[in-house]
Amino acid sequence: MDAIEYARANQGRFLAELIDLLSIPSISAQPEHNPDMKRAAAWLREKLLSAGCTKVEVMPTTGHPVVYAEWLAAGPAAPTLLVYGHYDVQPPDPLDEWATPPFQPTIVGDDLFARGASDDKGQAYVHVKAAEAFKETAGAPPVNAKYIFEGEEEIGSPSLTPFIREHADLLAADVALISDSHILDKNTPSVVYALRGLAYVEVEVTGPDHDLHSGIYGGAVCNPINALCRMIARLQNDKGHIAIPGFYDKVRALDADERAELAKAPFDREAWLPEAGVKADWGEPEYSIVERTTARPTLDVNGIWGGYIEPGAKTVLPSKAFAKISMRLVPDQDPARITQLISDYLLEIAPPEVSIEVRSLHSADSAIVRRDSPAMQAAFRAYAEVFGKEPIFERGGGSIPVVATLQKVLGIETILMGFGLPDDRLHSPNEKFHLPNFYKGIETVIRFMELLSHT
Amino acid sequence: MDAIEYARANQGRFLAELIDLLSIPSISAQPEHNPDMKRAAAWLREKLLSAGCTKVEVMPTTGHPVVYAEWLAAGPAAPTLLVYGHYDVQPPDPLDEWATPPFQPTIVGDDLFARGASDDKGQAYVHVKAAEAFKETAGAPPVNAKYIFEGEEEIGSPSLTPFIREHADLLAADVALISDSHILDKNTPSVVYALRGLAYVEVEVTGPDHDLHSGIYGGAVCNPINALCRMIARLQNDKGHIAIPGFYDKVRALDADERAELAKAPFDREAWLPEAGVKADWGEPEYSIVERTTARPTLDVNGIWGGYIEPGAKTVLPSKAFAKISMRLVPDQDPARITQLISDYLLEIAPPEVSIEVRSLHSADSAIVRRDSPAMQAAFRAYAEVFGKEPIFERGGGSIPVVATLQKVLGIETILMGFGLPDDRLHSPNEKFHLPNFYKGIETVIRFMELLSHT
Repeated sequence: MDAIEYARANQGRFLAELIDLLSIPSISAQPEHNPDMKRAAAWLREKLLSAGCTKVEVMPTTGHPVVYAEWLAAGPAAPTLLVYGHYDVQPPDPLDEWATPPFQPTIVGDDLFARGASDDKGQAYVHVKAAEAFKETAGAPPVNAKYIFEGEEEIGSPSLTPFIREHADLLAADVALISDSHILDKNTPSVVYALRGLAYVEVEVTGPDHDLHSGIYGGAVCNPINALCRMIARLQNDKGHIAIPGFYDKVRALDADERAELAKAPFDREAWLPEAGVKADWGEPEYSIVERTTARPTLDVNGIWGGYIEPGAKTVLPSKAFAKISMRLVPDQDPARITQLISDYLLEIAPPEVSIEVRSLHSADSAIVRRDSPAMQAAFRAYAEVFGKEPIFERGGGSIPVVATLQKVLGIETILMGFGLPDDRLHSPNEKFHLPNFYKGIETVIRFMELLSHT
Repeated sequence: MDAIEYARANQGRFLAELIDLLSIPSISAQPEHNPDMKRAAAWLREKLLSAGCTKVEVMPTTGHPVVYAEWLAAGPAAPTLLVYGHYDVQPPDPLDEWATPPFQPTIVGDDLFARGASDDKGQAYVHVKAAEAFKETAGAPPVNAKYIFEGEEEIGSPSLTPFIREHADLLAADVALISDSHILDKNTPSVVYALRGLAYVEVEVTGPDHDLHSGIYGGAVCNPINALCRMIARLQNDKGHIAIPGFYDKVRALDADERAELAKAPFDREAWLPEAGVKADWGEPEYSIVERTTARPTLDVNGIWGGYIEPGAKTVLPSKAFAKISMRLVPDQDPARITQLISDYLLEIAPPEVSIEVRSLHSADSAIVRRDSPAMQAAFRAYAEVFGKEPIFERGGGSIPVVATLQKVLGIETILMGFGLPDDRLHSPNEKFHLPNFYKGIETVIRFMELLSHT
């Protein structure tokens, strides 16, 4: 029996183990779940040990721990692979929109519903099971393998860069491998070669220093909510073009070749609309939906609040209004520079009668990797063999900041070998993982390691 | 001892009683306070009985009850006065901005701090104590008096108009008297002869039918918060001019005479700024602050919410965004017409990619009364005698919808005899009532009744 046959024969048990992992509410953003974070890390440690790893450690950081494992049986001549994943998940709210409880994994048809099913526990666990398959058949993986599973991805990985810097020798590798993205559809694999970055700010607008009665002061006091809305309206026009001066200066233009390659993806607008839950798409008309969501920078208000937000009518002229605003960035936009640009612009366009404060909440570098490296070609062939179809090169719309960190600190490129699907509802109610992708994912990783060992 | 001497001799007890009334959290908007509403009504009934009223009833409505009282001892030849007040109060939130608990009335210097101190329990109670002063000295008031104290003013008085229609005979009177407004400053009395109306709507914008990940869909999905902000920004320019088509069509222009009269008020911008808690005033530059806040229509967003509003960064592209928007109206704007105009305009300017719903939450007619009637002149003289200074005619910026109802249903004009001060922080944390105004208020009402009896 070879590793792939072993993986096929053990699918039922692998699924039961994944359900076990998904039952742990490891929400990194909520301190009351710190014990669950510890529990999830300990659980992974056990599974890495029984999968055959020779050194497994739950390593402390200033925040949630990193689970590290290694298995260096392939010898110094073989390539070394660094696998990254994360065991933390997004908060599940709004809870009342879940059809089944977020931490009671539920199988419906071929899908497994749970918070973290696709992002990223299900995809991370693929690698543990691939290792086990080698252990039980070949005795060990054909390449040297190192694993890091972090617990802070959903809160911006504050401890990860220091961790990688501090342990640069331990983590030294030839190439990194991450499964935290999606393929085009269940029959069409794809390789993500670029990711968007992020600049995320919170704006606080203060009008009067206390809440006022709109009947007594209305008309002569600048309302901070009205002011904030006018400011937000000036950040972006109704076609999606961003009006912050200098915002597009460093954007690497899409050339005709790349646009042609991106257009190869069998994108179906009619399927995309119900998946997004909208009646029409929106955004820069000169770019395709695929380009707008992966290769173009964006600006979204992620949250807004101020004044009276309970049922009924209160005639308050409030003291404060707040908004969380994030921008997805593309190469070569620098998150710190963009944060500065939006801060400057908001200060410039704020009415003189209010005061404003802009705080940076989060940022991430964009990333773009070579499509012609041996590892990328091994990934290409592994997908093609397991899925029976050549993968398509595409860009990802989200951020996986560790990709830029690995490039900067360890000097290695990352293969983004995703097994999610576009409708997995990451960060939303009713997140799911398509189970055939879980099983094919394990086989693809097995083939990738085998092919990589010949490079 | 005459009525005024009696009132002076009993100030301490009157204050103790008012503190008792203010301790009852009669918040009409919050169903959990329904027992407190009943308690406040019963409390008032007791005090009206012991003040000498011959018929006192807590009369049911479909909502909170009306406390009715009458004392018709002056004979059919004497005028009949209908006194209106309200015993319900605004919700006290935000609680953490109160220096002392809102329902633990606290005296600091000459001020009494509590929710409802000025709006309207303190001012309503003035009338009960004036009646008592007549009972204990003259035996009865010199005019026939009827009292209604409602419990739904802060939620838009849904039951009051039906109540007045149903009991039109019971409530028949020659003139109405309401103390629910403020004078210019503690030494400068004023008579309010006009009030603004109100149209209050809630807007719900729906983009995608579920929350999305901004990395996956951002750039190709119309964000309902961004859309709502763009829509709000188009309702009003940064100078305060409202851009809703037809909004100003029925606005009665201020003539030169009225502007001159309004300019008589000793308005002090340097005192107004810290009172409003702002560094600069704002609004239509062609009108004075007094005109902007009383004689001009306005538009304020009273509340806004949508997306992720907890601490930290969540990269959600939300499904929904909401805003509460109210407009203060002036004669002769019709609230129903204005509600229709803003609804039509919001629907017109909404991006085609979102759906919107506009709900009317509340409306109130504006009002304007004659300044030369005998009752108005009696009020003018009563203020002048008690405060030692002739009052100034002014317009009020808030809404007291009952004024329009009394005019429509009972055919009577209303004297707005306020005793609040501009900095009473109505509807805000740290609401207060200036105690010298409580006592002078009782004396002014006594003198007004005496002067009215000679008309």
